[in-house]
Amino acid sequence: MDFKKIDHYLEEKLSQSITELSELCRIPSIAAQNTGQTEAAALVASMLTRRGFQVEIMPSAGAPVVYGERKGKADKTLLFYNHYDVQPAEPFELWDSPPFEPDLRDGKLYARGVSDDKGHITSRLHALDAILAAEGELPCTIKFIVEGEEEIGSVNLPPFIKEHAGKLAGDACIWEFGYVDHRGVPIQYAGLRGICYVELSVECLSQDVHSGVGGTIFPSAAWRLVWALSTLKGPDERIRIPNYYENVIPPTERDKELFSKLPEIAEEYHRRYGVKAFLRDATGGAELRTQEVMEPSCTICGLTAGYQGPGSKTVLPAKASAKVDFRLVPNQTPEETLTKLRAHLDAQGFEDVHITYLGGEAPGRTDPDDAFLQLVVQTAEEIYESPMELHPMTGGSGPNHAFIHYLNVPVATAGLGYPDTRAHAPNENIRLDQYLQHARHITRILEAFSKQP
Amino acid sequence: MDFKKIDHYLEEKLSQSITELSELCRIPSIAAQNTGQTEAAALVASMLTRRGFQVEIMPSAGAPVVYGERKGKADKTLLFYNHYDVQPAEPFELWDSPPFEPDLRDGKLYARGVSDDKGHITSRLHALDAILAAEGELPCTIKFIVEGEEEIGSVNLPPFIKEHAGKLAGDACIWEFGYVDHRGVPIQYAGLRGICYVELSVECLSQDVHSGVGGTIFPSAAWRLVWALSTLKGPDERIRIPNYYENVIPPTERDKELFSKLPEIAEEYHRRYGVKAFLRDATGGAELRTQEVMEPSCTICGLTAGYQGPGSKTVLPAKASAKVDFRLVPNQTPEETLTKLRAHLDAQGFEDVHITYLGGEAPGRTDPDDAFLQLVVQTAEEIYESPMELHPMTGGSGPNHAFIHYLNVPVATAGLGYPDTRAHAPNENIRLDQYLQHARHITRILEAFSKQP
Repeated sequence: MDFKKIDHYLEEKLSQSITELSELCRIPSIAAQNTGQTEAAALVASMLTRRGFQVEIMPSAGAPVVYGERKGKADKTLLFYNHYDVQPAEPFELWDSPPFEPDLRDGKLYARGVSDDKGHITSRLHALDAILAAEGELPCTIKFIVEGEEEIGSVNLPPFIKEHAGKLAGDACIWEFGYVDHRGVPIQYAGLRGICYVELSVECLSQDVHSGVGGTIFPSAAWRLVWALSTLKGPDERIRIPNYYENVIPPTERDKELFSKLPEIAEEYHRRYGVKAFLRDATGGAELRTQEVMEPSCTICGLTAGYQGPGSKTVLPAKASAKVDFRLVPNQTPEETLTKLRAHLDAQGFEDVHITYLGGEAPGRTDPDDAFLQLVVQTAEEIYESPMELHPMTGGSGPNHAFIHYLNVPVATAGLGYPDTRAHAPNENIRLDQYLQHARHITRILEAFSKQP
Repeated sequence: MDFKKIDHYLEEKLSQSITELSELCRIPSIAAQNTGQTEAAALVASMLTRRGFQVEIMPSAGAPVVYGERKGKADKTLLFYNHYDVQPAEPFELWDSPPFEPDLRDGKLYARGVSDDKGHITSRLHALDAILAAEGELPCTIKFIVEGEEEIGSVNLPPFIKEHAGKLAGDACIWEFGYVDHRGVPIQYAGLRGICYVELSVECLSQDVHSGVGGTIFPSAAWRLVWALSTLKGPDERIRIPNYYENVIPPTERDKELFSKLPEIAEEYHRRYGVKAFLRDATGGAELRTQEVMEPSCTICGLTAGYQGPGSKTVLPAKASAKVDFRLVPNQTPEETLTKLRAHLDAQGFEDVHITYLGGEAPGRTDPDDAFLQLVVQTAEEIYESPMELHPMTGGSGPNHAFIHYLNVPVATAGLGYPDTRAHAPNENIRLDQYLQHARHITRILEAFSKQP
């Protein structure tokens, strides 16, 4: 491919692409608030149609999925997974410009969803435009799968992928996000942990009671909750649910080697989060990296009971609850966690602790030595100043397992994020230089992928 | 004394007394909000002056204490402990009439503080007016001690009492409150438990962290709190702080006898609070009554950490805290609880759990067979349809220990409360018939007390 011509196009037509992105960002397509999804899906569909894609707005059990396909030269198919929904914009007062009125200043475009994930959609389309302008055709078949519920846990995506596995079939997938870190180093994540998020709740009384009355005779929801939680994990940080670790695949020698190549993170964590000492005496290096992402976690995300204001209120609360986030590693599943958790609580005498399942995803990994993943890493070298860093796994979660398991494709990350991109926060923004870099990277990936045997 | 004349006066002049009470209730003397205290103290002082009391508005380390003394026939002194401060009136929207505009309807007077404790002040003054009208003098010396911080824990009262023990000296004390229960039975409480109220807080990080990042490597404030709490009390309901029970005086045979005379409460608790089963297999009777008030308790009044809204938020909270209420029985003290709690947390490795002392009071008991207490019980029989029920102790707390320990007087309860009086709640009210009964009871107590050898 003529990359001189392509790169020239990308720069020359950048503002046109940013205009298209701004149009998309004006739609408040907030999944959590059930607004703008139809409109955003229609706009994404029209963007694809305009570029010669065969487009379908396909129903799912939730928001529709925009599917677009355009054939290319080579008999290979690359999938792009993206989403058109965004996080809520609250708190509005912390935005320097209105979240749904995209604002370009200091080389950055500000808007809710501009980074997560609308900028990824349009920069990828921008890359395709440049290729089509220079070459007249795409180097391989491209399929876009653009869902509308990523920000609420992609609850309906895995069954959708499973159901349409034939139509969605491909050879590899580029994930919805990717980023360069604070040093400008692009990052490759070979896998995402799974998640099982639950609320544990206890209700012992029909109303709150004066604490002078019930303390020694009435059951206490807050105590029941504390005792139940304390059976889940102890100060040794080991999850105490029986057989909890039985399906955990330990890190391979290759994983350990890759972790040992990553730069030291300890100092950054001390500085950024005020961590005095890491758990289980970890101090840094590959040990800390491995412990961070290759192990299951059990985190209390929230606790609530009774009086929480200033000073004292003498009350025995009728109910208490906790939000608990289990992160899963291959080959754990959310279903398995739920089953084991219930059995454990019952066995410990906590039948009164109610479990509400608030969402989950299975973990998913691509072999870090997979040829496609390596291709994405190698092509990054042509674009970015630093080589791409390959992480065997990251701590977060997403629906990559559905692509890995139902479509049997490797999944690689590439994207325009950067440390101050403020996804999910006020003043979400992208840097136009990163937007361009990502589009360039996509063109290189496409060429290499098409030629890969 | 001429009780025919006295009772006639009480009925005939009732509306005059209610007018005086309404005037006092118009002052929003809210200790927690630091409003109206000076004005309320001045009005109480003028009420006492008008009745020939020697009055002083005495400074304390907090709000002033109104002290009034008037000599009487017998060489004996009865103390009235009351308070002119009230609870905040919020939430205003739940009041059927404005909380500081007293409203008389259906034989009840509605206003914030009308029951707790302003109605007790004026009904007692009404009783004295009736005696003075009929007899021309008081049967004994009367001292009023009316403080302004009862609703915020009487924090400055014990040192005030200790400092002025000479001036405040007396032979017996009538407590600020008393009530008839749902059956119309007047209740006598011979003692109040103490309290030590603390906030336990932990902070492990300088900011909340995405739960995908820190779960397996960063210390968690919520987990630290849960583990620390779980060392304080276990499902056997025994407080696990070493030597916690060493100063506890167990119930006497006489206490047990008194508890066994009380009516069954189990059914009422099942019904009112939806309690399915009492702690430690108690089912009712004297056992339940004894367990309720004669033992130390450790109650979680509040828990707070991280995300508490609907659905899920994947966050590792930087901090967590709990409100914990220890009720104390003789001879425990709040100071002892604090010291033992700190030592225990340290010994268990929870040096990072910070203790904030939010207030406390020592427990206080009067011998249930004390002659004055018995006199209050016996005189009640002349007034109320049912005999007064004598409880060796109640579960709540108050500053009675300061009177018992520094003034060495027996303390008895008598008052106008009734189950729907809504003290501390919207639509606080008194029943005028109970107001009259209490005034009558006070006149009988005064006569009997004056004649008691």
